[in-house]
Parts: sequence; C-alpha cells; structure tokens
Amino acid sequence: MISKTIKVFAPATVSNVGPGFDILGFALNKPGDEIILKLSNKKGIRITKITGDKGRIPYEIKQNTATVAILTMLKKLNFSIGLEIQIKKNMGLGSGLGSSAASAVGAVVALNELIGRPFKKEKLMEFALTGEKIASKSVHADNVAPCLLGGFVLIRSYNPIDVIKLKIPVQLFCTIIHPQFEINTSQARKLLKKNIPFKDAITQWGNVAGLVTGLLANDLELVSRSLNDVIVEPIRAKLIPGFYEIKESAMNAGSIGCSISGSGPSIFAFSKSHEEASRIGSAMKKSASKQISKTRMYISEINKTGASIID
Amino acid sequence: MISKTIKVFAPATVSNVGPGFDILGFALNKPGDEIILKLSNKKGIRITKITGDKGRIPYEIKQNTATVAILTMLKKLNFSIGLEIQIKKNMGLGSGLGSSAASAVGAVVALNELIGRPFKKEKLMEFALTGEKIASKSVHADNVAPCLLGGFVLIRSYNPIDVIKLKIPVQLFCTIIHPQFEINTSQARKLLKKNIPFKDAITQWGNVAGLVTGLLANDLELVSRSLNDVIVEPIRAKLIPGFYEIKESAMNAGSIGCSISGSGPSIFAFSKSHEEASRIGSAMKKSASKQISKTRMYISEINKTGASIID
Repeated sequence: MISKTIKVFAPATVSNVGPGFDILGFALNKPGDEIILKLSNKKGIRITKITGDKGRIPYEIKQNTATVAILTMLKKLNFSIGLEIQIKKNMGLGSGLGSSAASAVGAVVALNELIGRPFKKEKLMEFALTGEKIASKSVHADNVAPCLLGGFVLIRSYNPIDVIKLKIPVQLFCTIIHPQFEINTSQARKLLKKNIPFKDAITQWGNVAGLVTGLLANDLELVSRSLNDVIVEPIRAKLIPGFYEIKESAMNAGSIGCSISGSGPSIFAFSKSHEEASRIGSAMKKSASKQISKTRMYISEINKTGASIID
Repeated sequence: MISKTIKVFAPATVSNVGPGFDILGFALNKPGDEIILKLSNKKGIRITKITGDKGRIPYEIKQNTATVAILTMLKKLNFSIGLEIQIKKNMGLGSGLGSSAASAVGAVVALNELIGRPFKKEKLMEFALTGEKIASKSVHADNVAPCLLGGFVLIRSYNPIDVIKLKIPVQLFCTIIHPQFEINTSQARKLLKKNIPFKDAITQWGNVAGLVTGLLANDLELVSRSLNDVIVEPIRAKLIPGFYEIKESAMNAGSIGCSISGSGPSIFAFSKSHEEASRIGSAMKKSASKQISKTRMYISEINKTGASIID
C-alpha cells in the first residue's frame, strides 16, 4: 500500500469566453499541470516537490491550492491519511489559463482515485473550489468546472452552484497566445466596476444567448457574431499591450472569435482546424511581438474529458 | 382586382421571458389580432374599421402602428396603391402581450401577400418595427420577431438587428393570466434603472444562458431553474397587485416557470401539457382574484408559424 502512486493531468482552461464573464469556461488539451500523489506511512500531508513555478508557489499546505483542496476533501470524509505530493506546473502563474484551478482539481482527482473513488467527479468540485479560493480570493468556478469535467461548461448559478456541461456537436480548435508576464486575478477583478449600464448588460446577455445557441446548434457564424464582450474586455484589454492589434490579426487570419482568457494576459482564438489555428497563431505572435518581448503559443482542440489519470 | 382581400392572423407574443429582457420572445396560438386588407381603386390608405379597442386606437394613418408599417413598406417599394384596412383587436392595449406588434406584423404580412410577396418573411421585420416604434416609443423586436416568425426567438443584437429562431425540440404549453388593466410600455420602461449592479448582471446572463441551453437541449428542469429575473421583474412586479402570490400559485400548481409577459400586467406560466396548463391557470386566477377584480385566461401551445393568412 505504501508505494501506491497516482499521477493526474489537469488541463489549462479558458474562462469568461467573450461575453460569458464568470459563467462560461472550456478546457484545453495543453498546456496542463501534473499532480503526483503518493500514499505514505508517515502521517500528515507534505508537498515534496514543486517544479515549473520559479519558486513562487507555497509549500505550506494551508496556503497551497492543491493541499487546501485535499484537506477539505479529507475533512468531509473525516479521514486521516499520509500523503506526499508533487506539483509540476506547465503553465505560468497569473497566465489567465486557470493555473490555480488546475492544481486544485488535479489534487482532488488524484486523491479520489487513490482512496477508491468515494466521490463522483461532479462532487469533487466543491473541494477544488476551496483551493481555488485561496489563490484568487474569490469563488469563481469557470476554471475549476471545465478543468474537472472537460468540454464547454456553463456555471448558471453560484448560489447554489449549478454547473452544466454543454453538449457541443462541433470540434473547435483554440489558439492560445500567452504573453510572458503576469496578471494577478484578484487585482484584475478590482478594476471592474460595481455598476454597469443596463444597456450594456442587455447587449452582453444577447451575446451570451447567441454564443450558447451558436455552440449548441453548430452555427459558427453565430458564435463569431456573439463573441463580443462590451463590459469586461474593454477594461482588461488595457493590461495587455497591443491587445486590439493582436485580436485584429487573429480575425484577419480567419479566426471565428478572439478574446482574453480569464483575466489575461493569455489570449484565445477559435478556429475550425489545426491548420487554421497554426496560421492564426503565427499572425497573433507576430503582432504581439511589436509590444511584448516574449510570448508562448499553444494550439489545442477543446479537451473533452477534463482532469484524468495518466499513470 | 378591386375585390382582392387578404385576412391575416397575428399572434400575441410573450417578450422578455424571465431573464431575457429585450432579447427573448415567443408567439402564442391565441389570442391574436386580425388584419383585413382590401385593394381599392381609390388611391391612398384608409382604416375603415377598428374593433375590440374600445375606441382607443387612432384612425389617423401616421399614428396607427398597422398603417405606419404599411407606409414604410410601400415607401421601400416606391409603390402607390389604394388600400382599405380593418383591424380586429382580440387582446387589450397595454396588456403585455405585444398588441401593437401584432397589428404592425399583421399589416405587413397581409400587404406582402396582397402584392405578390415581393419580400421574404424575415425582411418584413424592419417595416413592422417602424409601426411598433410609434406605439411603444422605442425599438424593441422581442414582440415583432416572434409574432412574425413564430416559435421562440432570440434577438441577439439590435444594431445591427440579428434575429435567431431557436429550434426547440419540446412542445411547451403556456398559461396566460391577463389582469384587465393597462400598463403603458414606455412608462414601464422609465421605471427601469440606467445602471445595474454588475453582480446582478452576471446572475442574469447565467440564467439567460441556462434558459437557452435548457430550451435547446430539452432540459425542462434547467429551464425551470433559469426562469429567474433578478433585474426587471422585481421592479415591474410592483405594478401588478399580488404578483408574487399569483406566481407562487402557478409554481405550486406545477408550472415549469412563471414571470411577467412584456411589461405586464399579463403573467405567463409554462407547463408540459394542456391539462397542467389548465390546472395552473385555475390556481393563478383564484390567487389573482384576491386583489384584481377581473382577469382573462388563455391557454396555448407555442405558436410555430407566426402571423399567417387565414382567408
């Protein structure tokens, strides 16, 4: 029993998705974190190794998203266990790709597998959310839910939490451009206004309805017309040098739609094929290079399964 | 040619539909207006008869929604014609059932038929909207679009106008309770706030996305959870004595969801069968009778065709 080890891949996620602030998110096939959980005969929970974070992520278990999520789950089970955890970060902190959600989700999926799956996957969300809360200072499930479940996810309500995995007939490709600087999620939220014009809200929910309809009905032209955020993108665009030029280059290269991933600085762009996604990525990278010294690019289909056991 | 006559049925419509203020609407099989258009060898356009309006609707063709819509259409065609018009109102003014939209839509559908269908049905919308604007002092298409096209309609955008007929697999039944007093649409709009809390807007667009997903995916429990308007209903409910009690009686009688139709005072409630719709209607009528002296009830499936030629 002592040597039992579980390794989990937890995908990066794009939240907000144009007009769908706080309610829409989807998972990617790459990048993603890896969480390795090892049963130990020594009591207590220890983080033994963190890589890829440039020494930024706390080893202190009450500060770390992965271990906070694990502790909540163990408390719910009223369960005591010895655990050793390794966290391999493959995406930057403050990237807008749901880095903290991935660690939290990866940890609870690994623990659930390790102890014989006492919980259904959906039920793991509440534990992962407590981890996510430590990192982002607010409960938002639009990274945690798609990271856990895969696919395109709607968070209809937060109180009570109501998560719906959208059954999308089409396979979309996603290009991600990740400028190599950080945006702090909780600070990015503070820039948003407490009140918004009613008129803009109507425009936004018209686009939200159009986006969901387009996705479910496989009407990509409608998806394209609807991927328009009049409330959050205009504020957060200011945090990304040259954002509108990068977006324009994506659209000119044939993207279905392009916006900020999460609170940025990553930018996502949809397309219909890997070839298009590559061409769009090259155009975005070239445009970004005028004002941003270094960017990374990822090309991925939408991940269908969510966090999964890889060893 | 002189005796050619066209008669059109233009259905009542429910706009707003819970969280979908200004962007969602659907058509009913009853009630509805009838518009009779007769070619005349006497030049000009005349309203010869209006019934069911208690003398309230203007005969002056530049003030009447039906003739304003007709005049816009004729101007677009650069066409001169002699016309006699009869308008039979079967729903009250200020009922919240899209009365003015029905007259405008009925008129343009009748004219299009009379002159050999120069326009596709979708194209008639812009003419009907000019008529609607005369009555409600603002351009909102959430009655005109479902009245014209039938079914459940999304108005994703107003500028440019972008109307999508939702393909809904399920047949919903609708109970309408129409309290016999009037609410003026333009005055009801003035009660709404220019700015709203961002938090409430997020709740609203989560529900809009849930409602559309539930309708398209035939998930009536999701429709039920999503039919929740946190922004407009709380303000407009004050205009309808006992609104929350009536709503509660509908929900207790098994309704999927209940809210104000348009700007009220009509109230709609969804259900899965005619039998349920009747039972819900009885409960609502009984509850309403405590504070409202007279109500009318209608039970209808969702109309699938929109305004149609009946003679």
